[in-house]
Parts: sequence; C-alpha cells; structure tokens
Amino acid sequence: MYKQMQERYSKTTASMQHSFIREILKVTKGVPGMISFAGGLPSPESFPKILLAELFSKVIKQEGDDVLQYGASDGDLVFKHIIKDFEEVPYLSDDEIMITVGSTNGIYYFTRALIDPGDVIICEAPGFPGSLAAMESCGARVVGVEMDEYGMLPDGLRETIKALMKKDEQVKFVYLIPEFQNPSGRTMNCDRRRDIIKIAVEFDLPILEDQPYRELRFEGDRISTLWELARTEFNDPTLVTIAKSFSKILGPGLRLGFAAGPPEIITPMVKWAQKSTVSPDCVTQRVSARFIEQGHMQRQIQNIIDLYRPRRDAMIKALKTHMPESVRWTNPQGGMFIWVTFDEAVDTDDLFELAVKHKVAFIPGSKFYPKENIKKNELRLNFSYADPELIEEGISRLANLL
Amino acid sequence: MYKQMQERYSKTTASMQHSFIREILKVTKGVPGMISFAGGLPSPESFPKILLAELFSKVIKQEGDDVLQYGASDGDLVFKHIIKDFEEVPYLSDDEIMITVGSTNGIYYFTRALIDPGDVIICEAPGFPGSLAAMESCGARVVGVEMDEYGMLPDGLRETIKALMKKDEQVKFVYLIPEFQNPSGRTMNCDRRRDIIKIAVEFDLPILEDQPYRELRFEGDRISTLWELARTEFNDPTLVTIAKSFSKILGPGLRLGFAAGPPEIITPMVKWAQKSTVSPDCVTQRVSARFIEQGHMQRQIQNIIDLYRPRRDAMIKALKTHMPESVRWTNPQGGMFIWVTFDEAVDTDDLFELAVKHKVAFIPGSKFYPKENIKKNELRLNFSYADPELIEEGISRLANLL
Repeated sequence: MYKQMQERYSKTTASMQHSFIREILKVTKGVPGMISFAGGLPSPESFPKILLAELFSKVIKQEGDDVLQYGASDGDLVFKHIIKDFEEVPYLSDDEIMITVGSTNGIYYFTRALIDPGDVIICEAPGFPGSLAAMESCGARVVGVEMDEYGMLPDGLRETIKALMKKDEQVKFVYLIPEFQNPSGRTMNCDRRRDIIKIAVEFDLPILEDQPYRELRFEGDRISTLWELARTEFNDPTLVTIAKSFSKILGPGLRLGFAAGPPEIITPMVKWAQKSTVSPDCVTQRVSARFIEQGHMQRQIQNIIDLYRPRRDAMIKALKTHMPESVRWTNPQGGMFIWVTFDEAVDTDDLFELAVKHKVAFIPGSKFYPKENIKKNELRLNFSYADPELIEEGISRLANLL
Repeated sequence: MYKQMQERYSKTTASMQHSFIREILKVTKGVPGMISFAGGLPSPESFPKILLAELFSKVIKQEGDDVLQYGASDGDLVFKHIIKDFEEVPYLSDDEIMITVGSTNGIYYFTRALIDPGDVIICEAPGFPGSLAAMESCGARVVGVEMDEYGMLPDGLRETIKALMKKDEQVKFVYLIPEFQNPSGRTMNCDRRRDIIKIAVEFDLPILEDQPYRELRFEGDRISTLWELARTEFNDPTLVTIAKSFSKILGPGLRLGFAAGPPEIITPMVKWAQKSTVSPDCVTQRVSARFIEQGHMQRQIQNIIDLYRPRRDAMIKALKTHMPESVRWTNPQGGMFIWVTFDEAVDTDDLFELAVKHKVAFIPGSKFYPKENIKKNELRLNFSYADPELIEEGISRLANLL
C-alpha cells in the first residue's frame, strides 16, 4: 500500500544514467600492481602543499572574520578582481564573472539557466561525460558532432543544426572544450575557432566554452579563446560564456572554478548558485586569491608543465615503440589525455576487461559518446598521474594484448 | 532578429523570484550607525580562528596529497565516520549519510530527487525563504501550514493534505525546522513531533527535517529529532531525512552540512551532487573532521551558547522594557531569532521603511510566507550578531516608532 521511495522520484532523477566511468575507476582503484591510465587525476606531486598550508593559516588568522562568514553567491569580490588581473581581462565588470564550485558547477548552472527538458545541446563527439551528465540531468538532449584533429567539424555542426531545426528541435547552445580536449587531447586552431563562431552567429546560438586545461600548454603558441575571439574579432561580448577551473593547476579538492560571460547569463547562473550552494567555500576562495596575488601561480603552472611534459613524451614514445603500425593516437601539446584509435575490428570495451586482468587500465572510447553514434575502436589514456617508468610498462602491457 | 538572452531562459529561470531579503540586507549593510537585526549571521566572535588556522596548515601538510585530490561526491569518508560518532549514530551505514555544501545544498538535492514541476511541498508558515526559494527553483509549489507556539499545527497539516489530495495535487513531502525555527524561534515539543510523524505515516509522506540550530540550545532539555523518533518509536528508518549544518557552529564560509536518510534518498541526492558540484571542498571537510575528532567541537558549541544567551536575554529584556503592551514575541530557548507580533493594524513593511531611516533594521514578516496567506503584522529579529548594548539601543529605537 505504501509507495516505494523509487516511485516518488522526480522524472529527471528516475531517468539518471549510471556512471560507467565511476564503475571503471572503482574496478581499478587500489588493485596492487595496477597501472591506471583511466582516471583524470592531476598528480599529487603537483600540489603546492607548503604554500597552501601557510596561506590557509595566514588568511584565517588575518581575514577569518570575513571569510568564515557567509559570502556572496557570485563569489568573493577580492578573488574575482585578482582573477580578472591574472586572466588579463581587467575590463570585465563584476557581473560578467562568477566563482563556481569547480567548473562542472558552472556548466550545471549555465545549463539550468537555459535548458528546459527536451531542449538540445550540441557537443563534440567524443565529449566529456561529466559535463554531458550534468546537462542530461537538466533534461537536455545532447547531440554530438564529429571531430577531426582540429576539433568539432564546422560542416558537421552546420548540418546538425539544420537537421535539428528542420525537426523543430529547440537547440539551445553549443558546448566545446577547444583546448587539449577531454577525452581526445585535440586542440582547435584559430581558424577553426573562427569557423565555429561564424556558425554560432549565423544560427544565433550561444557557445559554452569549457577551458579546464588551457594553462597546461607544454609547447606551441597560446591560441585566443573563443570567448576572446568573439569579443575582439566579432565584436560580440554575449555569444560565448567561458568556464575555467583551478582543479588542474591548484588542486581539485579545493573545488574552485569560474565562469565569465554576459551579465544576462551570469546573473541567472548566480541565482541558481544562491538556491543550490549559497556560495563557494569563502576561505578557499580567499586563499586562492592570495596565492595568485603573491605571484605563485605562474611558477606553479610551470612546475606542472615540467612534471607532465615528460610523462606525455614517455607515453608517446611507448606508443611508438610498442603499438602495432595500424594504431593511431593524438599528440597533444598539453593537457592530460591522449586518444588512441585502433582498427575498426577492435572493441575497447572487450579490451578493457582483458587489460584489467593484466593490470593496466584505460577508459574505453564508447563511454565518451552521446547515445547516438557510439564508436568502439577508441580509448582514452591519461598521462598526468603515473610516473614515466610506469607509463612505459603500462603501454607495453596494453600493446601485448592486441 | 536575434533573440534577447532573456528569451532563451529556461522556464524555471524565467520564473525565479527576486530575493527581497537580499535587497533588505543591501539597504542596511555598511550604513554608519545602523543597528541591524535583519541578517541571519553568526557572530564573527564565535569563529574558532586560531584552531582552524592550525588545523588547515596541519591537514594540508600531512594529508594534502589526499585532500587536494578529487574526492567522493557523497563526501569524505573520514569526515562521515567522525560525524556519525559525534552525532551518536554509529549504526548508520555509509550510504545513509552524505556531506553537502551547506545544508541548503542538501535541501536542494532532496528536492531535486523528488520534485517534478508542479508538485507540492508542505512547509511551516512562516518558513525559511532560503529553503523555499531552493524548492521553488525546482518547480515546486510550496504550501504553508499555520503554526502555534509549538510549531506546525497537526490539524492544519491534516486539513491541508486532504484539501490538496482532493484537488489531485501531487504532495511530495513535508519540510520542517522543528527547533529554534527560522524565522519564528519556535520549537516543537516531543508530542507535537509525534503528532506530525503520525500524520506523515497516515498519508505516506516523507519528511525533510532541517536542523541548522539544534546545537545552539541555551537551556531546557534536548528533544529527540523527528528523524530519531521515526527510527526508534515508529520503527521507520525511511520516513525522515534530516539536514544539518556546520554554518552556525563552525563558520558559514566553510559551506559544510550533511544529510542523513534512507539510502533510497541519499543515493539519488549524491547523483545530483555529482552533476552539480562533483564534491564538497575536500580540504575543509578533513579540517572539520579533525576539529571534531580532537574534541574541540563541544567547547566551541559551549562558547557560542555563552556568547548568544546574553544577547537573547538582552533582546527579551529590551522588548519587555520598551514595547507597548499589545506587542507579543517568542521566547526561544536557543538559535538566533525572535519573532515579534503586533496588532493587526501594524504593517511591518511600512515599519521597515521608517525603521531604516532611524537606523534600525529587521526583516518584515511578510517575507517569510509562501505566496498565499501572507501576514503583515509580524517581524523577525536576529540576536546573534549585535552586541548586547546595541541590542538594547536598537529595540528602543524600534519601539519609539510604533
């Protein structure tokens, strides 16, 4: 007679998918001898513990009355101003930037601001499942567009938009990770970014640009973000909203990121923050502000680059040494991931089962695709977490299974 | 031809109400000479700065590799276990408790787990607008039930449920702050709690029990929570989910709370956390864990009680001294708020305008009611923030305006 709790769930809750990646991480975590390229974790060696320990102590002693108190939902004003300086965007007004509880939080609020159940978001295929899950939890239908080595294909984007509009689908925005993309490691060059912006303007579609890895560039010239290009070359300060993260440059446990965009987007995002978290952690915000203000961030970023570049090099070298000739992989200029493509005959879901038995792990490519158009002959390798010697050994183990 | 950004908003975003309380706090903040009883802020004098400064430094140095890394969406297991000990509920399984980014965050996830747009939540009238706004953002219709000095009226609850069910409304749960309620300061006695539970059982409705002020009891015996009563006296471990906060006992800037309930509720709440914040701040969680583990929390709570009790006493004394005989107020045994009721002729929205000119502030009672049944002759006073001398002066100013 009484209802089961599950019968009470909201529709979005009842339809939530299980996270396969979390299952995979559980299977591989803590297994003795396991070499895991599966997670997307920064190396603990990169955490600036001594500096942070000092700063937390100092900030609480000196500014504790302020930062232990309730703070603004759009974030600590001190932190916002220091971020504007650090990002070299001093002209931004305070209502064009908000601090978020990590960048996924910004992506969630952006989606909440715009998406009604059934609305469509266009993303890269393959794309980042964490973001796609956040979007789908708001009832969005996520549609993928194929990529080449420079990211999302402009023709693919145009055709996808046209086909959706023809079916009267409410396409709400385009979501992209243009640099060292998760999972593919690919980076959009400047021309591709312009092409994508032109299409967004043509079809009057906002862009959400996710940039968690931008600072982790090991070589090559820095490329303007879509957010910058839209403002400068297209004279359009409302088209692109950018989400950034401190997870990859300071420590993901601190849960800090920020979003910058037009006030018409940031304002409703802040309203969602009020209702959901009230504000990010105020102590952590101020500590991060002082960390940047005191000039530690540039050195910190360089330290991470010096740590990760040899790991990427070791992985690329090991792939060259051990993989059969038919196998291809991306050669990212930064970030944390390499994308490997096998013959069509290879099924990386099967390969994963085998690999775990041989104590090497990765994420099968199928986990990164929206429900349609899943490809099975790809996989993601993370190179930021394991030591170079383990990277060599792990890739060798993997190649032996093919 | 191009859409305005506002035209792109999701329905829930477009319908979000402005927060009148935030406007009021803006008007009163930083005004020289203003005595404000408006905010709901803990006193900064209560913040254990020295201990926290030491612990943050120590935890990051000793446990930084762990706590600066990504953490579990249900919260730090170390923290969860220490909370179970502190709350004397060691029998709880790990999937019956989750850490949240403050208790509003838990209320938001609970609502997300159960509410489809149009569903009804029953709450106290007056109730806490922060929670009501979080619920309304999920599309809930919030219906208030009148209170007497012991909180929500059982007959009112029963009649409200019956009336709603008769109209085929989807009533999803009952939301209560049974102790030192915000805004009224009222506390449900044990019999009232049992009566409410009986009605919830009768109509098969889950209860969300919000307990942010429970530890701030200045006198009188501790009363079992509805969560405890349901488990022990009613043998029902699934009926009640409880949300608690560290904001009032440690510092709201840390944004920590927790929720405990049946796994069938906590599990989907954790899924929402994954999509929205990934996890609470891991450093802050571990620091709070060590703070409790090292035995500081009991003394910390006693310090706050010793700080707030004289402030409540000063406010009650000032009300007795200065207010006309027709005015009534609650006499809370703890918490942070007193609720004042005037003759029906008094409109506290008008009184607020006048009061601000005379440099004293409060929140008009109308701001605490769901849209229906707004009462205008009440107001909320906060006693935790101002010094006792300022409390005397502020109440005197207010009484002079009547």
